[in-house]
Amino acid sequence: VSAAPQAVETGLSLEAAVRLGLEDYGRAQARAARRYGPDFVALWDIAAQTMGGGKLVRPLLMAETVAGFARARSGAAVAPATVIDAAVAVELLHYAFVLHDDVIDGDLMRRGRPNLIGTVAAQHPARHTPAAMHWATTAGILMGDLALSGVYQTFARLDVTSQAKERLFTLLDHAITETVAGEFADVGLADGCLDPELGTILAMSANKTATYSFAWPLRIASVLAGQGREVEEALASAGRHLGLAFQLQDDVLSTFGDPARHGKDPNSDLREGKQTALIAFARMTPAWRDIEGLLAQDSITDAHADALRAHLEACGARRFVEGLVDESMDAFRAACADPASPIPPQVRAVLADAADRLHERQS
Amino acid sequence: VSAAPQAVETGLSLEAAVRLGLEDYGRAQARAARRYGPDFVALWDIAAQTMGGGKLVRPLLMAETVAGFARARSGAAVAPATVIDAAVAVELLHYAFVLHDDVIDGDLMRRGRPNLIGTVAAQHPARHTPAAMHWATTAGILMGDLALSGVYQTFARLDVTSQAKERLFTLLDHAITETVAGEFADVGLADGCLDPELGTILAMSANKTATYSFAWPLRIASVLAGQGREVEEALASAGRHLGLAFQLQDDVLSTFGDPARHGKDPNSDLREGKQTALIAFARMTPAWRDIEGLLAQDSITDAHADALRAHLEACGARRFVEGLVDESMDAFRAACADPASPIPPQVRAVLADAADRLHERQS
Repeated sequence: VSAAPQAVETGLSLEAAVRLGLEDYGRAQARAARRYGPDFVALWDIAAQTMGGGKLVRPLLMAETVAGFARARSGAAVAPATVIDAAVAVELLHYAFVLHDDVIDGDLMRRGRPNLIGTVAAQHPARHTPAAMHWATTAGILMGDLALSGVYQTFARLDVTSQAKERLFTLLDHAITETVAGEFADVGLADGCLDPELGTILAMSANKTATYSFAWPLRIASVLAGQGREVEEALASAGRHLGLAFQLQDDVLSTFGDPARHGKDPNSDLREGKQTALIAFARMTPAWRDIEGLLAQDSITDAHADALRAHLEACGARRFVEGLVDESMDAFRAACADPASPIPPQVRAVLADAADRLHERQS
Repeated sequence: VSAAPQAVETGLSLEAAVRLGLEDYGRAQARAARRYGPDFVALWDIAAQTMGGGKLVRPLLMAETVAGFARARSGAAVAPATVIDAAVAVELLHYAFVLHDDVIDGDLMRRGRPNLIGTVAAQHPARHTPAAMHWATTAGILMGDLALSGVYQTFARLDVTSQAKERLFTLLDHAITETVAGEFADVGLADGCLDPELGTILAMSANKTATYSFAWPLRIASVLAGQGREVEEALASAGRHLGLAFQLQDDVLSTFGDPARHGKDPNSDLREGKQTALIAFARMTPAWRDIEGLLAQDSITDAHADALRAHLEACGARRFVEGLVDESMDAFRAACADPASPIPPQVRAVLADAADRLHERQS
C-alpha cells in the first residue's frame, strides 16, 4: 500500500506525494516482475528510475486543479488516494508516449541523461553493437506497452462512480487517439508524406502535445471533482491554448535554448529536418533557398547549425513563432478571465500559476 | 451498430460473426479517424484489412467455449453482442502483439502477404528508402498502441457485472505482462542477453504465446459464462498445455514446414539465430559444432539453410521437439479427460475439437 495519500494529508507538497506515488508504482511492478526472471526485474528498475524524471507538469496540473475545486468548495470531495492514483496514470501515459517517441526518433538521451533505451543498451554485454541496440529498442517498445496498459489498469481500479469511470475511459480513448494521430502526422511531415504547411504543423502540434498534456489532465480533474460538462469543456479549451503555447515554445527552445539547461542535443531538430512552425515560416521567406541546403544533413556540423539558427533569426521565423506563443498565451488568459466562464476563481488561479511557470521556463 | 450479434442469432457461423464484428470495428475506427486527415484514415483502412487475416484461433476458442457452456446449461446466458465484442477484443490484443513483434523483428510480411508495415512502406512516395521504412515502422508502433488501447476500451464497454469486469481487467493485466515478459526473453535470447537453456526457452514459449493465445481466451469464456474460479483454473491449465504444444509445433513448422502453406520465409528463424527448442536441443549434441557455424549468418543461402535442416534432423532435434509437442498434447488430453475435472463435457468437446484442428495444421 502506498504512503502517498497519507503524505498529502500530512501536508507534504503535491509534487512530493506524486513522486512517492510513482516510486511506489515502479517498486510494485518490479516486485511483480520477479517471477519472470532478473532481466525483467532490471527492466522495471530502469523504468522506475526514468519515469517521472521531469517536472511532472501533467500530473501536477491535474492534482492542483482538483485542489483548486476543493478550495472553491465546488463539487465532490476527492480522496487523496484517488488523486495520487490518477496522477500516476497521467504520468504513465506520458511515459508510454515518450518511450515510443524515443524509439521512433532513435533517441538514447532525455534531459541530458540516458533514457530507458540508452540505459538498457549500456547494460548489454556487447555495448554499441547492433544486438545491444536491438535489445534496447525492444525494451523501449515493450515497456511503452506496459506503461500504456498500466494507465488503463490504474483507471480501472480508481474508486469513483461508474459514471465517472465511464467518462474517464472515454477521455482516455480520445487522448490516446489524438496523440497518436499527432505523432503520426509529425513523423509523416519529417518523412515527406505530408505537405509541411503551417496549418498542418499547428494542428499536429496541438494534437500531439496539447491534448494529452493539458486538456486531458484538466478534464480528468473536472471529472474527479464531480463537475459538469460545461466546466470540463471550458477547462479543455483553456488547456488547448496553453498546450499549443507550450509545444511551440518547446520548438523554439530546442533550437535556440541553452542545451546545458534543456539537456537535449541542440542540433537534433535541425539534423532530423523536423517540420516545426519555425521551418514552415522560413519556407515562405526568401531565406529558404539558403536554409534548405543546410537542413536535414546527417552529419550537420556545429557551424552549419549556427548558420541555420542565424538564418531562422534573420528571416523572422523565431520572432514569428514567439508571436504565436504569445497569441496562444493571450487566448489562454482571455479564456481564464472571461467573466462568463464557469471555472471558479480558485481554479483559474491554479491555471494562471501553471501558465506563468511554463512561460518562464528555459527547458 | 454492428450486425454481428444478430448474425449469431440468425444462425451464421461463429467465425463469420466474429469476422463481421472485426470488420465493423475497423470501419468504425476508420470513420472516426476522418477528423485527423486522409493519412490517418488510410492507416485504419490498412489495419482493417490486415486485422483478423488469420484463422481467428483465439477469439473462436473463446466464443466456442462460451457456446459449450450454453449447451451444458451451465452458468449464465451470455448475450451474442457480448461474445462478439469480447472476441473482437481478443483478436485486437493478438493484432497489437503481432504488430509490435513485426516491428521488433523487422518483418514486412505475414501469411505470405504484406503486413501493415509492408503495406505502409509500399505506399510511401519514395518506396524502399530509409524514410519509407521509418514511416512504416512508426505506423506499426502507433497502430499497435491503438489496438492495445482498443482492447481495454472494448472490455470497458462490455455489458457484464462489475465483478466480472473487474476480473476481466485483472486477467488482461496478467495476459499482457506475461506476453511482454515472454517476448522480452525471446529477444534477449536472440540478442545474447540470456543463456539459451532449454528450460528458459520453454518458459519463454509458454509466456509469449500460451497465455494470451489459449489460457486467456478460455479464462474470458469462463468469466463471461459466470463460472467459478475452479472451472477457470482448470481451463487455464488445459490451455497452457495446448498453447505450449502450439508454439513448439510452430517452431517446427517454421523451419521444416511447407513455406507455400505457412507463408513465411522458411529461413528466417535460422537467419535470425532464433533460440528455439530445436536449437537448444541441438546445442547439447555433438552436431552443434557444425550447426553453430551455419547459424546466424545475415546472408544465409538456401544451401546453408538446407544443410542446417539436415543437421537438425540428423541430431534428433526435430524428433525431440515433436516429442515435446506430443507430451504437451497428452497432458492437455489428460487434463480434459480427468474425471475430477470441473469442466462440463460439452466444453471438453470444444477443447478437443480445437486441439485436433491445431494438431493437424500445416501452417
